[in-house]
Amino acid sequence: MPDPVTASGAPTGGTAVSPLLIRMQASDNVAIVANDGGLPPGTAIPGGPVLLDRIPQGHKVALVAIAAGAPVLRYGIPIGHALKDIPAGTWVHERLLQMPDARGLDGLPKATVQPAPLPPLEGYTFEGYRNADGSVGTRNILAITQTVQCVAGITDFAVRRIKAELLPRYPHVDDVVSLEHGYGCGVAIDAPDAVVPIRTLRHISLNPNFGGEVMVVSLGCEKLQPQRLLPPGSVAIADERQPAGADAVLDVVCLQDDAHVGFLSMVESIVRQAEGHLRRLNARRRETVPASELVVGVQCGGSDAFSGVTANPAVGFCTDLLVRAGASVMFSETTEVRDGIAQLTSRATTPDVADAMIREMAWYDAYLGRGGADRSANTTPGNKRGGLSNIVEKAMGSIVKSGTAPISNVLAPGEKLRAKGLTYAATPASDFICGTLQLAAGMNLHVFTTGRGTPYGLAAVPVIKVATRTELARRWHDLMDVNAGTIADGTATIEDVGWELFHLMLDVASGRRKTWAEHWKLHNALVLFNPAPVT
Amino acid sequence: MPDPVTASGAPTGGTAVSPLLIRMQASDNVAIVANDGGLPPGTAIPGGPVLLDRIPQGHKVALVAIAAGAPVLRYGIPIGHALKDIPAGTWVHERLLQMPDARGLDGLPKATVQPAPLPPLEGYTFEGYRNADGSVGTRNILAITQTVQCVAGITDFAVRRIKAELLPRYPHVDDVVSLEHGYGCGVAIDAPDAVVPIRTLRHISLNPNFGGEVMVVSLGCEKLQPQRLLPPGSVAIADERQPAGADAVLDVVCLQDDAHVGFLSMVESIVRQAEGHLRRLNARRRETVPASELVVGVQCGGSDAFSGVTANPAVGFCTDLLVRAGASVMFSETTEVRDGIAQLTSRATTPDVADAMIREMAWYDAYLGRGGADRSANTTPGNKRGGLSNIVEKAMGSIVKSGTAPISNVLAPGEKLRAKGLTYAATPASDFICGTLQLAAGMNLHVFTTGRGTPYGLAAVPVIKVATRTELARRWHDLMDVNAGTIADGTATIEDVGWELFHLMLDVASGRRKTWAEHWKLHNALVLFNPAPVT
Repeated sequence: MPDPVTASGAPTGGTAVSPLLIRMQASDNVAIVANDGGLPPGTAIPGGPVLLDRIPQGHKVALVAIAAGAPVLRYGIPIGHALKDIPAGTWVHERLLQMPDARGLDGLPKATVQPAPLPPLEGYTFEGYRNADGSVGTRNILAITQTVQCVAGITDFAVRRIKAELLPRYPHVDDVVSLEHGYGCGVAIDAPDAVVPIRTLRHISLNPNFGGEVMVVSLGCEKLQPQRLLPPGSVAIADERQPAGADAVLDVVCLQDDAHVGFLSMVESIVRQAEGHLRRLNARRRETVPASELVVGVQCGGSDAFSGVTANPAVGFCTDLLVRAGASVMFSETTEVRDGIAQLTSRATTPDVADAMIREMAWYDAYLGRGGADRSANTTPGNKRGGLSNIVEKAMGSIVKSGTAPISNVLAPGEKLRAKGLTYAATPASDFICGTLQLAAGMNLHVFTTGRGTPYGLAAVPVIKVATRTELARRWHDLMDVNAGTIADGTATIEDVGWELFHLMLDVASGRRKTWAEHWKLHNALVLFNPAPVT
Repeated sequence: MPDPVTASGAPTGGTAVSPLLIRMQASDNVAIVANDGGLPPGTAIPGGPVLLDRIPQGHKVALVAIAAGAPVLRYGIPIGHALKDIPAGTWVHERLLQMPDARGLDGLPKATVQPAPLPPLEGYTFEGYRNADGSVGTRNILAITQTVQCVAGITDFAVRRIKAELLPRYPHVDDVVSLEHGYGCGVAIDAPDAVVPIRTLRHISLNPNFGGEVMVVSLGCEKLQPQRLLPPGSVAIADERQPAGADAVLDVVCLQDDAHVGFLSMVESIVRQAEGHLRRLNARRRETVPASELVVGVQCGGSDAFSGVTANPAVGFCTDLLVRAGASVMFSETTEVRDGIAQLTSRATTPDVADAMIREMAWYDAYLGRGGADRSANTTPGNKRGGLSNIVEKAMGSIVKSGTAPISNVLAPGEKLRAKGLTYAATPASDFICGTLQLAAGMNLHVFTTGRGTPYGLAAVPVIKVATRTELARRWHDLMDVNAGTIADGTATIEDVGWELFHLMLDVASGRRKTWAEHWKLHNALVLFNPAPVT
């Protein structure tokens, strides 16, 4: 866990006149300006330089003179090398930095850090929906799986009818969600990488928040046939229509079935099939379960320089609490951890886990290379405006979401979670693709940190949004669930916000509180990761 | 235009007892069974063999004995070579065929066919919305462009308010459409192939059905900044707020703008900006324009063996009518025309046009090859059940949609149409990706043929759906707009159905008739073609 120190002594509240700088490690030769509105030239930093430039909020200032070619250190590591002499007090932005190459994937330390086990955290519970397969839902949702985009319009029509006509009669069901996606016959389904979108869709259908009530709408002629999407044995259906011990029969509404005469008969089939599932879902009740049943996906988006100082360290502290409580936590976003690979392989519990991580990084390096890109394609104009000079700096701030626990598992994109503890779930950094893959892994609660601000939400799982800055939390007061900006303001510690988040998770998981995204019903699309070509 | 002949003489109506076979060319050694329900073994084909197998409807029968290794001829070309001796009367399915390799792209005939010009077709008009840039809309729609998936939830919320509160006051506006897409910051925006999704989104915003009223919702920190999506000069804005002669200012609602305090203020901004556009759109009226203003995208999906016999030839006849009337027609679906490349390069108006077509095919071959796939990944289980053995056979039936006119232009994926006449718009065959790219090219009317059946629709442009079989047209009576199955039944000719479609196009374009997809408001998603990697 980084330990923020300020060049100006302890944080004092961040007024415009009192300069507030945050340095992550004592060895850093830059610090970021925390003051709202930044700091003007001429400002004297107590114990440091006089500013030569205006430094925007979240941007870096050189604390000492940095010679051309010397490393610029943040988080104790070189985030770049000076392209020319940088006098103390200068604004250090991306145009003054030569980004280092990505570290090679050979000779990495593997499972070399074996920290003392974190003390168990016992006695925390939430109210969840226990499923037949042992998983626990935080919401009670009927999800309608689709094999192909062709059926999306009709399914949407049917879902509107189900919500208007049926859902009010099943008050213990939270929602009806259409699992629409852009996957169609066009995907080269036998291409080696097509396994990724296929298993993603399969595993999303089995997300704990859907209670095992799998229902599929199929067109009929699509490449991704229902039996290929959900082969026998993949669905454990607890259904009174199934004889005991018999192989479960997948519930499929096929639009091209001869029995369908006209549009409304197709809608009628979907509505009728939905009702059986709604009846069973409606009979379920929340029960007290240990916090170890949480499956939390952590992610960041619209990051700024505060992400790695406030929100992400608070999430990292909370990650440790969750791991101590026996829960499952996934961190992801391959291009945002690539530059920290040595830290991560060191923290792996075994060399095998480290090797799995290296395998995912190597696959992604090759995937990007085929398209003429590399990890540097990650950073956005907003990241840079927010003070993040390059992907190295962004990655250092992103990784801290993973806390300090040993990394005990690795998932390839679209795979289902295999064990509790801290897992690296390899995904692209794109918010929607990462969220979709974490849903597939079995996430039942989502934590999302943001510095620039995003209204991100998912229909299937509650998303708790954490603001990195107080100004954002105030302005987006009805979109941000937690304000980690208090850490930069000096009014709360990382531990305070980590515990606040932990308690909020238990409340949201229990349905006692809704997130703002749930309140407004803000849902982003499922976006599949398809590294295979389309035809 | 293929000229169907029947092995049993003139079609007589297709009862179960009178065998009805369709052979496309006199040289073909197979024909397809047109009878509903197929034909049983023992059926004697007048002037042909006695059937040895049950032949399902739409499937092929060997008219003569075909020796192992000999070509199986349909559409006058080898769709495969017999894997063993095939006696006359045998069901010829994909397991008896060795698919030929794709023809190489060297040494192709270029602009070698110079048919006599088609006679002009004059005097046909429709009622359309004339735009400032000279294009003509068939609908009057407010489209809300989005730079990134992040804003989709809020935009959707705002669009529901606009439809409920504002739209009833602007009765000349047909609809408000959110141009949601899965593109986000995750895309490697500087990768060479990222130009495809970027220009696709740009050009969709400029579709003629949106009347030049471009309005953008942006998050603020995204890679695809509004000015990158729609650079100065790309939008011809006729707006009373703009001083005459000044550079048009793009209308952008940016959610991260400091002025936005809280969720509802963002919604309010979108609704307020929308109202100005609605007011101007509402002042527009349809006017009589020549049929040459139609920009028609033709496509097929859920194809069967009848696609190439009934619906696609009728569309091809109509394509010729449209070209004769001076209109624009696009055909697409690279993997479905790849096997007919020699026909197409021959039909190019100039060697340059032929070279452009070859360039697109070569690009796509390489793209598929990088992902370990080739054109054979196109055919679906439904195609095969419908009688299409492989992509060669499917391609021959697909290409006939393009009629007989010279091919005068070629578009790369996402490009905007440059000229009237017949254009090959290179796209993947995936229905949604193809439709999205044809929208970007400037399509104002869409024709979609289907044999297995699909409820396909688009929010931005009317989609006329043509059934290949009477049985489908009857059963899906409120989803199919035209029945081309009458051609196989013998109750109509290709010309009859082609003219029916042409007249229906003018009615639908004029707003006098709605398609079934419009009636039910069935809309599939926009799905971008993104050959670049995501990060």
